Amino acid sequence: MRLEEIGEFGFIRRVSGGCLIRPEGVERAIGDDAAAFAVPPGQLSLVTTDLLVERVHFLREATSPFNLGHKAMAVNLSDIAAMGGTPLEAFVSLAIPGNCPVEFLDGLYDGMKSLAARHGVNILGGDTTGSRVDLVLNVTIIGQVRKEEVLYRSGASPGDVICVTGTLGDSRAGLQFVLAGETSPDPALRPLLEAHLLPRPHLEEGRFLAESGGATAALDVSDGLSSDLTHLVEESGVGIRVYADRIPVSAPLRAYCAAQRQDPVRFALAGGEDYVLAVALRPDRARAVGAAFLERFGRPLYRIGEATAAGGLELVLPDGVAEAIRPSGWDHFGGREAP
Amino acid sequence: MRLEEIGEFGFIRRVSGGCLIRPEGVERAIGDDAAAFAVPPGQLSLVTTDLLVERVHFLREATSPFNLGHKAMAVNLSDIAAMGGTPLEAFVSLAIPGNCPVEFLDGLYDGMKSLAARHGVNILGGDTTGSRVDLVLNVTIIGQVRKEEVLYRSGASPGDVICVTGTLGDSRAGLQFVLAGETSPDPALRPLLEAHLLPRPHLEEGRFLAESGGATAALDVSDGLSSDLTHLVEESGVGIRVYADRIPVSAPLRAYCAAQRQDPVRFALAGGEDYVLAVALRPDRARAVGAAFLERFGRPLYRIGEATAAGGLELVLPDGVAEAIRPSGWDHFGGREAP
Repeated sequence: MRLEEIGEFGFIRRVSGGCLIRPEGVERAIGDDAAAFAVPPGQLSLVTTDLLVERVHFLREATSPFNLGHKAMAVNLSDIAAMGGTPLEAFVSLAIPGNCPVEFLDGLYDGMKSLAARHGVNILGGDTTGSRVDLVLNVTIIGQVRKEEVLYRSGASPGDVICVTGTLGDSRAGLQFVLAGETSPDPALRPLLEAHLLPRPHLEEGRFLAESGGATAALDVSDGLSSDLTHLVEESGVGIRVYADRIPVSAPLRAYCAAQRQDPVRFALAGGEDYVLAVALRPDRARAVGAAFLERFGRPLYRIGEATAAGGLELVLPDGVAEAIRPSGWDHFGGREAP
Repeated sequence: MRLEEIGEFGFIRRVSGGCLIRPEGVERAIGDDAAAFAVPPGQLSLVTTDLLVERVHFLREATSPFNLGHKAMAVNLSDIAAMGGTPLEAFVSLAIPGNCPVEFLDGLYDGMKSLAARHGVNILGGDTTGSRVDLVLNVTIIGQVRKEEVLYRSGASPGDVICVTGTLGDSRAGLQFVLAGETSPDPALRPLLEAHLLPRPHLEEGRFLAESGGATAALDVSDGLSSDLTHLVEESGVGIRVYADRIPVSAPLRAYCAAQRQDPVRFALAGGEDYVLAVALRPDRARAVGAAFLERFGRPLYRIGEATAAGGLELVLPDGVAEAIRPSGWDHFGGREAP
């Protein structure tokens, strides 16, 4: 079905079902000049926004609309997770080219609503308009966190223990499948594709760390571990030493890299879109927080290194040799990716 | 200068000066996973978002970047005005094609910052990324309003007096100049071009009406008066009768229409982007609110009609004949504009 058959307001009516899943405190959702909702006292508001552009971030013909909607929501939820927050309201702006069928947009909204509902997030509004060529999607999420618990990038001190909440590099390997047009790889390698297509925001992990009292700083690993840890270095004014053999790599990524004769640690350092959290822990609390994490989630909080007094990011190789590493993530304009 | 010479983070550093102009309550601005700020108790949060796409909403080669930035900010501020609210924080997402020079983006940010600063609004974050062809700009604004004062579209009752806070149709005439490539019309007609290029959000008027205690509903006139009053009809479940000879039309628009042998009332009804407010007032309060408005702003709150018990929107012509009018504003997908 073509969008002009139902018009702008018909489209808004069509997709707005299932958008308001937590009505408490919401005074106005879709349909007024602005959304209106109550914010409980004593909380900080958190806001994050992310723009996805066709032919830059995705190929419409090669992407399932559900997965695209899921990812657009997930990347923003991951930013709220990295602040230790709880996501509450989402706003979706869409610029839609004339050749994009309504059914694609239905799928896109299904993907967004499904992940939003799982985390109690309302879609409270947005904007829909036309586009000449490319589909463009901007999601803004508003969340909250107690001021005493918020996790910034700037709180790490020398001696803090650096951990990550999950394995790294899977999404990058999954991207290789997508780029090669491989939609059903060996079942043993399927988790890599899923890590790329349906990333899971670590919201429960972020809340756990915020409440633990032991976390001094956090951020999500979206551009690649080396790039994101460089943000932590810069914002906290510390150095960070990472041990290559402690970087957690999944069994499927090991198998994939063995077959491809590639180094999984390179995938983990330079690959982006992992959406796990990197966190700095006070050294006197690290052991207790790690044990409680294992108990709560049934998997470890991986200790990968420590913050140091000297600036910069260094990688200690298995033979004990340390080398300075430059950030090697994604720059949206330079297009550079590896050092 | 090309964007890839300074990179994504260089660009963010370059434009972030002057973004934080009201630091109270702001815990984190640009540079963390999300912005963090305090919300005073007892207030509703208001959120609005608007997406502008090159070749749909503007032509890059024919637009001053300052004016584009101004308009992107203004259309969102106008939505906050229509809720009776105070705007506080803005978030800007940009998708930038490789052929867009940094100087254009500087101008764009200057336009946004200038209007934001005038209304005490911080630019607290956003997202910047690449685009293949078109420049895309999404602005989200967060504001607040006391729950007792918020103005929805749904509060009007039969008998309420319908007013607008300014003249209508000027922006549409200004658009004609833009489409004709006329950048310096007759000085007497210049206000029409300015109404289109540099619309003024009626924030003070919105706050005044919200505090007046006499307003029952409001919205901003963005798609065209007939289209926007239809929203009021639908959301409030009333009819609205508008008197053609009471619709306020500026002297420049009268002069322009006389020369073009066109009907200024048609410009006022069908033209969009006026960004004045339409408001419903309790009949027993209308006179006092109008007098106070005149005293405060030095110009009238124009009474254009009343809400009725019968549904629909009707226009009473100068000879006393009433005719039903269909909405004739802009549909972003159908592209229809006039009935």
